[in-house]
Amino acid sequence: MNIKRFLVHGICCISISSYAQFKDPRPVKPLPNIIVFLVDDMGWEDTSVPFWNQLTVLNKRYRTPNMERLASEGMKFTNAYATPVCTPSRVSMITGMNAAHHGVTNWTSPRKDIPADAPDDELGAAPWMINGLSPVQGIANTVYATPLPSLLKAAGYYTIHAGKAHWGAMGTPGANPYNMGFLVNIAGHAAGHPQSYLSEENYGNMPGKATAQAVPDLEEYYGSGIFLTEALTREALKALEEPIRRHQPFYLYLAHYAVHAPLQADKNYYQRYLAMGLDTAEAQYASMIEGMDKSLGEVMDYLHTQKIDGNTIIMFMSDNGGLSLAPPRGGRPHTQNLPLRAGKGSVYEGGIREPMLVKWPGVTQAGSVTDQPIIIEDYFPAILEMAGIKLYDAVQTVDGKSFVPLLKQPARVDSTRSFVWHYPNKWIPDDGPGINYKSALRQGRWKVVYDQRSGAAELYDLQTDIGEQKDLARREPQKVKALLALLSQQLQQWHAPMPVIKATGKPLPWPGAGGL
Amino acid sequence: MNIKRFLVHGICCISISSYAQFKDPRPVKPLPNIIVFLVDDMGWEDTSVPFWNQLTVLNKRYRTPNMERLASEGMKFTNAYATPVCTPSRVSMITGMNAAHHGVTNWTSPRKDIPADAPDDELGAAPWMINGLSPVQGIANTVYATPLPSLLKAAGYYTIHAGKAHWGAMGTPGANPYNMGFLVNIAGHAAGHPQSYLSEENYGNMPGKATAQAVPDLEEYYGSGIFLTEALTREALKALEEPIRRHQPFYLYLAHYAVHAPLQADKNYYQRYLAMGLDTAEAQYASMIEGMDKSLGEVMDYLHTQKIDGNTIIMFMSDNGGLSLAPPRGGRPHTQNLPLRAGKGSVYEGGIREPMLVKWPGVTQAGSVTDQPIIIEDYFPAILEMAGIKLYDAVQTVDGKSFVPLLKQPARVDSTRSFVWHYPNKWIPDDGPGINYKSALRQGRWKVVYDQRSGAAELYDLQTDIGEQKDLARREPQKVKALLALLSQQLQQWHAPMPVIKATGKPLPWPGAGGL
Repeated sequence: MNIKRFLVHGICCISISSYAQFKDPRPVKPLPNIIVFLVDDMGWEDTSVPFWNQLTVLNKRYRTPNMERLASEGMKFTNAYATPVCTPSRVSMITGMNAAHHGVTNWTSPRKDIPADAPDDELGAAPWMINGLSPVQGIANTVYATPLPSLLKAAGYYTIHAGKAHWGAMGTPGANPYNMGFLVNIAGHAAGHPQSYLSEENYGNMPGKATAQAVPDLEEYYGSGIFLTEALTREALKALEEPIRRHQPFYLYLAHYAVHAPLQADKNYYQRYLAMGLDTAEAQYASMIEGMDKSLGEVMDYLHTQKIDGNTIIMFMSDNGGLSLAPPRGGRPHTQNLPLRAGKGSVYEGGIREPMLVKWPGVTQAGSVTDQPIIIEDYFPAILEMAGIKLYDAVQTVDGKSFVPLLKQPARVDSTRSFVWHYPNKWIPDDGPGINYKSALRQGRWKVVYDQRSGAAELYDLQTDIGEQKDLARREPQKVKALLALLSQQLQQWHAPMPVIKATGKPLPWPGAGGL
Repeated sequence: MNIKRFLVHGICCISISSYAQFKDPRPVKPLPNIIVFLVDDMGWEDTSVPFWNQLTVLNKRYRTPNMERLASEGMKFTNAYATPVCTPSRVSMITGMNAAHHGVTNWTSPRKDIPADAPDDELGAAPWMINGLSPVQGIANTVYATPLPSLLKAAGYYTIHAGKAHWGAMGTPGANPYNMGFLVNIAGHAAGHPQSYLSEENYGNMPGKATAQAVPDLEEYYGSGIFLTEALTREALKALEEPIRRHQPFYLYLAHYAVHAPLQADKNYYQRYLAMGLDTAEAQYASMIEGMDKSLGEVMDYLHTQKIDGNTIIMFMSDNGGLSLAPPRGGRPHTQNLPLRAGKGSVYEGGIREPMLVKWPGVTQAGSVTDQPIIIEDYFPAILEMAGIKLYDAVQTVDGKSFVPLLKQPARVDSTRSFVWHYPNKWIPDDGPGINYKSALRQGRWKVVYDQRSGAAELYDLQTDIGEQKDLARREPQKVKALLALLSQQLQQWHAPMPVIKATGKPLPWPGAGGL
């Protein structure tokens, strides 16, 4: 550890020198600015940018001209993945660990020591990390890890958090973005959604009515008529003034609360979607999507005005699939991401496949596309690589793989890498498709979906069946067996939490060894 | 304006160069770090450090060993003044303007457009700036001014806000410390007091019970048993790590919520004061004083450990006199600051005289004392002078005078300078001593106290009568006339707001021209 610590300090000095005055006469390439634009609960097709080989009904519904612009200027990832729900994805992104490894397998309650799991007659909650991530050792029921922003900060980056944090419970260090290495925190805390998007409701801070979800820090926008998405954008761009003035590289993590429930109309865009014939809930949702896209455009415009767009990386991502519970969504349940199956909370593609765009001027080719799968924990090593940090002192073992090589060679294919999803929790009281006590593994075109309670497995060929409609498990028993063995091995290696059988007090068996 | 703007940018570059690598071989004296340690509602004698020529009963009650330490290492100001209530003082400190000039003459409600004034049969509220300070032009009912931290930030300082802000109402830019030029904001917002000091009550953030006073940003301390004062201290010291690592000068504004109501026991100190025979309220208050003093000690210890105490200025101040309303204080009303008359809200000495200490290593003499009066707006030019900022681009005309010359020559006396207090508001429904619709002026040993409603004036010789018990107005009518003329002239020059006579719709006459 000591040699690593020494080396990361060496890197730190080199990084700082690129914005301080430097005596070495050789030109120093400035470190790139890095922006992660993370959307909450946005589905793979909730955009006019097609991420499949054809334009879907949903692609035609939503209007996201700024995503189109980013896609045309950068690279599109057609097989990008997150986890089925928010906290696991966010912890994976900031630690580089798979959710089965960090153990924050479900969303965290803002209140400490309270698991978010729905009750079940047969199964007790898995021993998961119910208090989330902690950057400090010894906090009960948390995973201890070194957060990405603290490494960036140490390397000379000016680190800004704006929007949803949701890494840890109130009463633990993980509740506070400052403890993650952010120098500025705008509106981030322990909660996973806003109490309200409306300035007319003070974003939830009405006297005596505020819950743990009331959005902090935006007092100046109360009563202004400004939707939460826009208020966060303005504050994030204001925070950029300081590093730009200093010529210091920055890391901006702009994690919008949108488009998570509560669905509320962004009045700048709402009427158009009502006029299209959408019901109230869906028109509200679409208006939130377009408002989020507007924010992306404002960020891009700002970079251009400040003449730093040529040295700023923008990454667009969502943290899980689009919500397909109805209500609050309109229409029939679990149809909101068709042709993808199911939605948020599910290990089917509707729950985990994400719209992802990356623009790195001078590195990505305009309008390029890669079909290689990546997963949310890959952001950790990718961002460190972008920041020129080759050696770093993190307490965790990182599972993600940097996608920077893909940015340079989009046609690279690795069909041997396996991708794991593990959700040993009960998300909702009634089961839904791919929802509650499920795991999955993808390798190349193949995906196995595993039911932890019953021990049953399904097999899909994603290349020909993106909707996971044709279960090939009976036809390909050897494939199922091999993939389950891989999944089991990986879960055991990570000491992944498993649901507990109430009758015996023992955990459910690993995949491949039968169910309850 | 353009030439000033050019000059301040020039200064900015020079300042930054002192922490960046600098090619000029001459040694550059580093800019000092600056800490303002501001306490809320702390009275002049609520400390074991005597600020008078004798130890008072109250000095013997309170235990503040760290203030004693700071006094022994730095300079004591025995005649330091603020205004009768919090927002006017805080706006004066951050703008350099007298309260009669900036027009924020009363405390601001956290809610926009709602004056905090108590109703009155005869008088309507003065047209004061009920929404507080705005760093942005064109916000209704605010004073537009350039805040001190934004000037410090532009000059290369790393600016940190921790604790109470209370400069502007929710829904205006002044609500957010980021808009004042702070790079870090811990727990500051539009409210003037905490909903709770107790982590057991999440500092007010209990679901469904939070008011506008629920303290933001401290989720990690919920349920920890850590009193608010200590939580703020820990966060403030954590925030210092960054500028210390960068060798960047910092400005830390550590504005404790303590010792403002609600009075709540800091359990680390409470029992001692109960054992002394104090009633519950007074023991709670004393425990909050000692907890605040502990924080000062922790800051001093931290500077020493980090080896930056030799280049860090610490200033200790309170924003108005000790509260003398009972309840919530124990004992009879308006006796809590004896021998000073009255308390918070009053223009008598009990409401405006403050404990003030300044340590500037290499400048102040250890254990020195000055009796020259100063007032809260003097902090603005003094801090700019400490930071080496000689020319600056502020939109307001500054009324304060730097007290830096006093730090070097404590015996300097200026008996010609006049000090003005102007409170054209009704603070509480029933009048109290020096409370509601009052003004005052001090010049040298003399102080005139003016009742706006009746037009009556009192005269005191503070040198022989610190308790303002012997009204000399009848004996010295010429003195009264002269001082009232000075007061009137100054208020007119500043376009000071005056209460409005309901019967006529006209403002009350200026001092010296009779009352209602």
